[in-house]
Amino acid sequence: MEKNRFSPVTATVLPRFAGIATFMRLPYVTPQDPLHAEVDIGLVGIPWDGGTTNRAGARHGPRHVRDASTMTRNVNRASGINPFALCNCADLGDTPVNPVDLMATLALITDFYTTLHDAGIAPLSVGGDHLVSLPVLRALAKNGPIGMVHFDAHTDTWDRYFGDSLYTHGTPFRRAIEENLLDPKRIVQIGIRGAQYNDSENDWGERQGIRVIDIDEFHALGVPGVLAEARRVVGDLPTYVSFDVDALDPVYAPGTGTPEIGGLTTYEAQQLVRGLCGLNLVGGDLVEVSPPFDQTGNTAFVGATLLYEILCVLAQSIAKRKRDATRALVSA
Amino acid sequence: MEKNRFSPVTATVLPRFAGIATFMRLPYVTPQDPLHAEVDIGLVGIPWDGGTTNRAGARHGPRHVRDASTMTRNVNRASGINPFALCNCADLGDTPVNPVDLMATLALITDFYTTLHDAGIAPLSVGGDHLVSLPVLRALAKNGPIGMVHFDAHTDTWDRYFGDSLYTHGTPFRRAIEENLLDPKRIVQIGIRGAQYNDSENDWGERQGIRVIDIDEFHALGVPGVLAEARRVVGDLPTYVSFDVDALDPVYAPGTGTPEIGGLTTYEAQQLVRGLCGLNLVGGDLVEVSPPFDQTGNTAFVGATLLYEILCVLAQSIAKRKRDATRALVSA
Amino acid sequence: MEKNRFSPVTATVLPRFAGIATFMRLPYVTPQDPLHAEVDIGLVGIPWDGGTTNRAGARHGPRHVRDASTMTRNVNRASGINPFALCNCADLGDTPVNPVDLMATLALITDFYTTLHDAGIAPLSVGGDHLVSLPVLRALAKNGPIGMVHFDAHTDTWDRYFGDSLYTHGTPFRRAIEENLLDPKRIVQIGIRGAQYNDSENDWGERQGIRVIDIDEFHALGVPGVLAEARRVVGDLPTYVSFDVDALDPVYAPGTGTPEIGGLTTYEAQQLVRGLCGLNLVGGDLVEVSPPFDQTGNTAFVGATLLYEILCVLAQSIAKRKRDATRALVSA
Amino acid sequence: MEKNRFSPVTATVLPRFAGIATFMRLPYVTPQDPLHAEVDIGLVGIPWDGGTTNRAGARHGPRHVRDASTMTRNVNRASGINPFALCNCADLGDTPVNPVDLMATLALITDFYTTLHDAGIAPLSVGGDHLVSLPVLRALAKNGPIGMVHFDAHTDTWDRYFGDSLYTHGTPFRRAIEENLLDPKRIVQIGIRGAQYNDSENDWGERQGIRVIDIDEFHALGVPGVLAEARRVVGDLPTYVSFDVDALDPVYAPGTGTPEIGGLTTYEAQQLVRGLCGLNLVGGDLVEVSPPFDQTGNTAFVGATLLYEILCVLAQSIAKRKRDATRALVSA
Amino acid sequence: MEKNRFSPVTATVLPRFAGIATFMRLPYVTPQDPLHAEVDIGLVGIPWDGGTTNRAGARHGPRHVRDASTMTRNVNRASGINPFALCNCADLGDTPVNPVDLMATLALITDFYTTLHDAGIAPLSVGGDHLVSLPVLRALAKNGPIGMVHFDAHTDTWDRYFGDSLYTHGTPFRRAIEENLLDPKRIVQIGIRGAQYNDSENDWGERQGIRVIDIDEFHALGVPGVLAEARRVVGDLPTYVSFDVDALDPVYAPGTGTPEIGGLTTYEAQQLVRGLCGLNLVGGDLVEVSPPFDQTGNTAFVGATLLYEILCVLAQSIAKRKRDATRALVSA
Amino acid sequence: MEKNRFSPVTATVLPRFAGIATFMRLPYVTPQDPLHAEVDIGLVGIPWDGGTTNRAGARHGPRHVRDASTMTRNVNRASGINPFALCNCADLGDTPVNPVDLMATLALITDFYTTLHDAGIAPLSVGGDHLVSLPVLRALAKNGPIGMVHFDAHTDTWDRYFGDSLYTHGTPFRRAIEENLLDPKRIVQIGIRGAQYNDSENDWGERQGIRVIDIDEFHALGVPGVLAEARRVVGDLPTYVSFDVDALDPVYAPGTGTPEIGGLTTYEAQQLVRGLCGLNLVGGDLVEVSPPFDQTGNTAFVGATLLYEILCVLAQSIAKRKRDATRALVSA
Repeated sequence: MEKNRFSPVTATVLPRFAGIATFMRLPYVTPQDPLHAEVDIGLVGIPWDGGTTNRAGARHGPRHVRDASTMTRNVNRASGINPFALCNCADLGDTPVNPVDLMATLALITDFYTTLHDAGIAPLSVGGDHLVSLPVLRALAKNGPIGMVHFDAHTDTWDRYFGDSLYTHGTPFRRAIEENLLDPKRIVQIGIRGAQYNDSENDWGERQGIRVIDIDEFHALGVPGVLAEARRVVGDLPTYVSFDVDALDPVYAPGTGTPEIGGLTTYEAQQLVRGLCGLNLVGGDLVEVSPPFDQTGNTAFVGATLLYEILCVLAQSIAKRKRDATRALVSA
Repeated sequence: MEKNRFSPVTATVLPRFAGIATFMRLPYVTPQDPLHAEVDIGLVGIPWDGGTTNRAGARHGPRHVRDASTMTRNVNRASGINPFALCNCADLGDTPVNPVDLMATLALITDFYTTLHDAGIAPLSVGGDHLVSLPVLRALAKNGPIGMVHFDAHTDTWDRYFGDSLYTHGTPFRRAIEENLLDPKRIVQIGIRGAQYNDSENDWGERQGIRVIDIDEFHALGVPGVLAEARRVVGDLPTYVSFDVDALDPVYAPGTGTPEIGGLTTYEAQQLVRGLCGLNLVGGDLVEVSPPFDQTGNTAFVGATLLYEILCVLAQSIAKRKRDATRALVSA
Repeated sequence: MEKNRFSPVTATVLPRFAGIATFMRLPYVTPQDPLHAEVDIGLVGIPWDGGTTNRAGARHGPRHVRDASTMTRNVNRASGINPFALCNCADLGDTPVNPVDLMATLALITDFYTTLHDAGIAPLSVGGDHLVSLPVLRALAKNGPIGMVHFDAHTDTWDRYFGDSLYTHGTPFRRAIEENLLDPKRIVQIGIRGAQYNDSENDWGERQGIRVIDIDEFHALGVPGVLAEARRVVGDLPTYVSFDVDALDPVYAPGTGTPEIGGLTTYEAQQLVRGLCGLNLVGGDLVEVSPPFDQTGNTAFVGATLLYEILCVLAQSIAKRKRDATRALVSA
Repeated sequence: MEKNRFSPVTATVLPRFAGIATFMRLPYVTPQDPLHAEVDIGLVGIPWDGGTTNRAGARHGPRHVRDASTMTRNVNRASGINPFALCNCADLGDTPVNPVDLMATLALITDFYTTLHDAGIAPLSVGGDHLVSLPVLRALAKNGPIGMVHFDAHTDTWDRYFGDSLYTHGTPFRRAIEENLLDPKRIVQIGIRGAQYNDSENDWGERQGIRVIDIDEFHALGVPGVLAEARRVVGDLPTYVSFDVDALDPVYAPGTGTPEIGGLTTYEAQQLVRGLCGLNLVGGDLVEVSPPFDQTGNTAFVGATLLYEILCVLAQSIAKRKRDATRALVSA
Repeated sequence: MEKNRFSPVTATVLPRFAGIATFMRLPYVTPQDPLHAEVDIGLVGIPWDGGTTNRAGARHGPRHVRDASTMTRNVNRASGINPFALCNCADLGDTPVNPVDLMATLALITDFYTTLHDAGIAPLSVGGDHLVSLPVLRALAKNGPIGMVHFDAHTDTWDRYFGDSLYTHGTPFRRAIEENLLDPKRIVQIGIRGAQYNDSENDWGERQGIRVIDIDEFHALGVPGVLAEARRVVGDLPTYVSFDVDALDPVYAPGTGTPEIGGLTTYEAQQLVRGLCGLNLVGGDLVEVSPPFDQTGNTAFVGATLLYEILCVLAQSIAKRKRDATRALVSA
Repeated sequence: MEKNRFSPVTATVLPRFAGIATFMRLPYVTPQDPLHAEVDIGLVGIPWDGGTTNRAGARHGPRHVRDASTMTRNVNRASGINPFALCNCADLGDTPVNPVDLMATLALITDFYTTLHDAGIAPLSVGGDHLVSLPVLRALAKNGPIGMVHFDAHTDTWDRYFGDSLYTHGTPFRRAIEENLLDPKRIVQIGIRGAQYNDSENDWGERQGIRVIDIDEFHALGVPGVLAEARRVVGDLPTYVSFDVDALDPVYAPGTGTPEIGGLTTYEAQQLVRGLCGLNLVGGDLVEVSPPFDQTGNTAFVGATLLYEILCVLAQSIAKRKRDATRALVSA
């Protein structure tokens, strides 16, 4: 097999613990690099947790996920997908951030993603806390609202914290809906659970039309039922995938800011992500890996593996769009 | 909503990591406090592990569960119960203990709980090793034996250790039955597993009439079947809930003295505890959280969340009794 | 009960944390010891990880599994088997190894096991990385190929690494088949998963006739279905059991060199091993416990418990063969 | 000895691991409590790390220092001081904070300390990152600049970070000098070390007149020489003590945001703090304990012990002022 | 070199991580073993912490020190002593203990050591908490009081805890003096520090004539001065060495029950122990290694190395007595 | 200040936790990169521990040191040296290695360094175990033996292990002397300590003329005396610096394969390395950082800081040689 310039370093040649750690051992491509123009999917770190209301640490997420992701191999045994054969994937580095200025950082992130979006690069991001999804969506959905498959223990559609703080990791999707970045009727939230601050906490989101599949309904429907419902909700239009690692049970992902017991297993999560294959995916993120609370490193490892699973379905979707576009061009 | 004096501090006002750690951020109420007379449910720590035959450390359980319990919110999403709205709940501090005198400590604990019992306060305790259930039951069941729903990997009805030691964390319920504090025919034990010292180990308990649902039968019956059987066994009479965290698989609760692989998941445990709603509950405990063996803190966190689940069903039961009593008074 | 000289130290007499740590608190029997001739099953450590291509550390496995195994009791609650009553079991210590010389170590291990084999002792080993199974099989199968029930996330039938390295923990069973130590048609591999280096990775093994039950098929068949298939594959002929702890999900066994998410639970593993009861077992191993990556010690504890489960079915098989031989002798 | 209401719980009566964790087992006194008016020294937590430019986590400092401080006893063996006999000391709880709003939090902290200052309570605080010293000084020095003995690896007089961010944990004392809260000629900084961003980094502070004793000069002068110089610099006027745990070598205090190797030992730190006895002290803080980076808990323990050492010299100073004031009153 | 039967396994032959862990890789010799009669120095574990008033865990000390002690080599570079060449050393296993019965355990330990004492074996023990020194001394000093060099942060001559508890790890040497096992005028205590419960805490011991060298005096005298004073105090009569690892600063020995900052370095401890060479030593112990609080394992490793240092000076003393006795016999 | 292309990323612009981790945030320069020809000092990782006789793990050293080294700033406060202003420094990535083939790896490493040497790049390496110094020296000293300042707890001049194994991390400098890569009379070894296998262990090295300054002599001479002696030994000829982190006391560097208590402090190590300024340095290495044994990450952090200290003196030496060469050229 002829290796292209976007191939990961292979572990049967150089051991996985060797070399500078980039996402999945992909080449690190800066905007100045001539390769940048050829990138289809950009893996990006957003090292920032300024929206965290409780335990911080997700600012260290990208580096630890990079390290763990060097364990990744190429071909998805279950689906047969080799994302690196389908698309040109690269590590685009981290966005600039300011750990002591929330509003400035939101702007810096949106700027970074606007550049990618304008270059036709589909982003797959690693947070950071969940607030980082908001500035990404501001770049990605600037031409109109998109749908979202959202894995999480929490709906993240709370209104405000500590009086009048509008921007926190508990509020990104309320803001995104208010800003018309997400179409609430095309949002499905999977894995929701845990106690609530008050009786009416989730009413707002469901009133907007969000389809909430809480953990009890998840078990009642089973993975196939949940997937059918998710596909029905988001349909064929452009869709974003946002995976908060606290969707998983804390034994799989202890290194996170707001764990809730009774969550998904990694096997269930793998089945769910694989089941998104064929959707019209435009990007995704994996957030809330918090290394200071991840003593065993398993959260970063789990995060890296699920990032690979998201990459597989995203690459399949991007490759299909490229193929379709080529055909359209040819037949035109 | 009008806040009463027994409301937990709210995380949307003060972050969860802030403030002195009491159980679920409830007020700390000493016997000298005028609020003491109004308490319905008292959360109490029993920082003692003098009955531990193997790995000690549960003496540190109450403090770590307090710390972890500041993550708790108010309303149980699954059941809709808000225990803090149903009952006056308070942190009553820790019982006095003597770490180098087993018999003295048993007496100190019973004294503490007798005072609560006489004041009409239902206790919800955090151990400590499982031997602490015995002195609690001596106070709680002094007017006659009660029933028990017991979650555990072990039956804790062993006779004696190391020759003639009668009081260990492997023997509390044998002693409680012998002392007529528990009615063995109204005891159900769920999650029992692990290898045994000899062939006849569990015969004594079952001969007394204890209903043992070991882990294989648990999987055979399923959660609804187990709950039906548990409710049949304990019936409508006063019932205690005792939850040893080693009922859970060690991945959920590594920080415990005598782990056994192949145990319950936290989701199963949540389903089981929620299924006790409507029973005639008079108190409960959560024991064997051993922080020195809980490097990630997850055991304390799991323990705190299950404590909240037990509180929900206990508060529902206490509130119902208060309502019934009021009605009886009114109609009299 | 009369204690024989091969009985484990009992925890109700001496606490489990006391005493020098041998496997399951069994007597340590050197070849010079007169007891050696009476041993039926020898528990052996192979403290070596020189075949590890990624994260080393399994060289420390035997000592940590010994420590954790002092938590073991005697009677298997699920099956009723007391292996120590069925067979004379002993800790035979560790094989000699050379941590800086791969080929020399393979020879040292084979020599050690040849001595055991010639003495009629069935080996139950603790690795060490998975390459150690190869020199064990060279001793055990020197008279012809045997079958194998193999629990693992990986097939370990890869050809070579880093150019021309033939002997690694990813290649033992390819070598064993090439050397006619294993009959590929009598091999079943359970729990296989994870991404692959390339599309054709597993073809070789399946072409030889290995029955691969990957994790998706495992869930599709269920434990009884998997067991039926495994028993069909290996039949009544001599069979080896090889358990790589990475067959388990990393939350159960984080301390291992090549974790893969989405694996077996310990309860499933217990069911699977217990289901091997009645097969014609000639030995087994438990490998890839890597203490430096096992911060909580749970991997060693899980490994020790599964070692006990394998011992139960192995003892049952050995005892049956001894009984049959005695009967044959008597009736002759 | 007659116990007053401000006595710590005694460990020979109740074990140190028992009871709700307050600073040094002192009573928790809220502003509503009648005892509040009698407090001389208030121990306060500031659970906030919003000024951290690198590794966050100091928001968890107060709770962990509280926990560790329950190991404290009463009488300083070296100096003979019993601070609890000299002054009424109490745990006043944590200040309100907003983890997602830097400027709002600075105001909340200053408000809290203004109330204490107006009530004549000397504050001894536990951070939080070092930026928290600024809002404390805004309350404490509102009537004019004070002096400071400052233990740290860094001068914390940097101008700005990330472009125009003025308020970070690297800038508090530049801001405090600019705001006329500290008299730079009465500041001594001890333990400064580590590489610098550029050649001119520390020029500003020294130009203002700060006396910087870096780690090499510390070793050259020895503890007595350093103490003589520190006492000369701050003189008899009101002086604040600020102790950043990163003044210590990271082996003593790994749990901190910006460690620098080659620092003070705890014994040296104890000698230094004890040597401040007799100065005109008006308050102090201990900052930058970051529990997520403190796996062994030793940083919190070291912090708690040094907090006790600062309390001893502060109590001695406060008691003397009270005595002097009483005498003045009597003789008037 | 001809190896005798008491030689440690050599690391250049078998790696240190291999093999069953005995103290310093010495042979494990049971009382039944014919070798037992030839043992000069017996290394013994006392796995018990029932006298601990605060953080338990030292019951696990012997096993972890055994594990760490496999790193030991033979010849002391500084002193040239090879203890294994001077004396027959062996691991005699652990004493029986009862973790739930304090008084019974004291008796079990004394019985065990009486047997050794009667067999002429000098004991070198590993605790366990410091209370274990008392039952050892009851066996060792049954013919009259002996002297002691005592390294510790605490004097351990407190009278009682929790009311009337006479036997705790804070009281062994008060009891030993009262029971005439130790001659207080021949006791020197080195490293004492930390805050005290009250002003008169240490008066009792010093009134009996104990020579207390607290940490400040240690630094004032320097190692040679301290050693001169220690040798003066204990003189030529039989002397015991008791080393509590909390004499060391907690960075060297975090895994202990009652750490105190500002302690000895390991280098100072090595100098001190080596300086005891030539004293008339009759036994020793190393206590308070508490593995559950020793996340990095360094405390066990430090403990094992200091155990080796004590063994060197003890072996030198025993060998000299044997030589003297032989000469006396020969010349008689 | 004009930034050149070899400047580290600045923390006041991008936080230290952000971005892909290269050594000291320097640019990653591959051999294909046009910048490669301009590199003066190349930082190289050697991720290999195949020569480890005891606890492996140093293969992970380069990646963890890279991560920790992002905490580095530019200007050495003590010496005023800014290495990045003096020389063009770059991260050249890791050497190829084969974790299962010792001899092949030695050759791969020598090839890599020969290329650097031929390109006039001075190497500063991060191990890996200490055996990696040998193949580096084979490239560096191919034109004749050089001198060495060697910091270590061990002399690493042992002959062979496990029978006939010549190449281990205990033997590199014996081999290097035998191969005429090092001039033994120009070697100084600092910090040597720990017990020895036998009486004659170190004789060989000293017989060749190595100047061994063991830890007791280190304390006797003091840092200035040791430095004077070291400078005398190596003189003005080309000299290599090899720093094994086990030269440090294990509290500073627990994450290493063969710790020995009683070692150097980091402050002493900093003084020693700074004192090499002005020597004729040609390269250096920092080895034996073993992340699996470095739970707190402090060893990697200490290693990274000492790497920076070595870089400072190396850069000063290289810059001087360049200056001298330029002058010679100009004046020619």
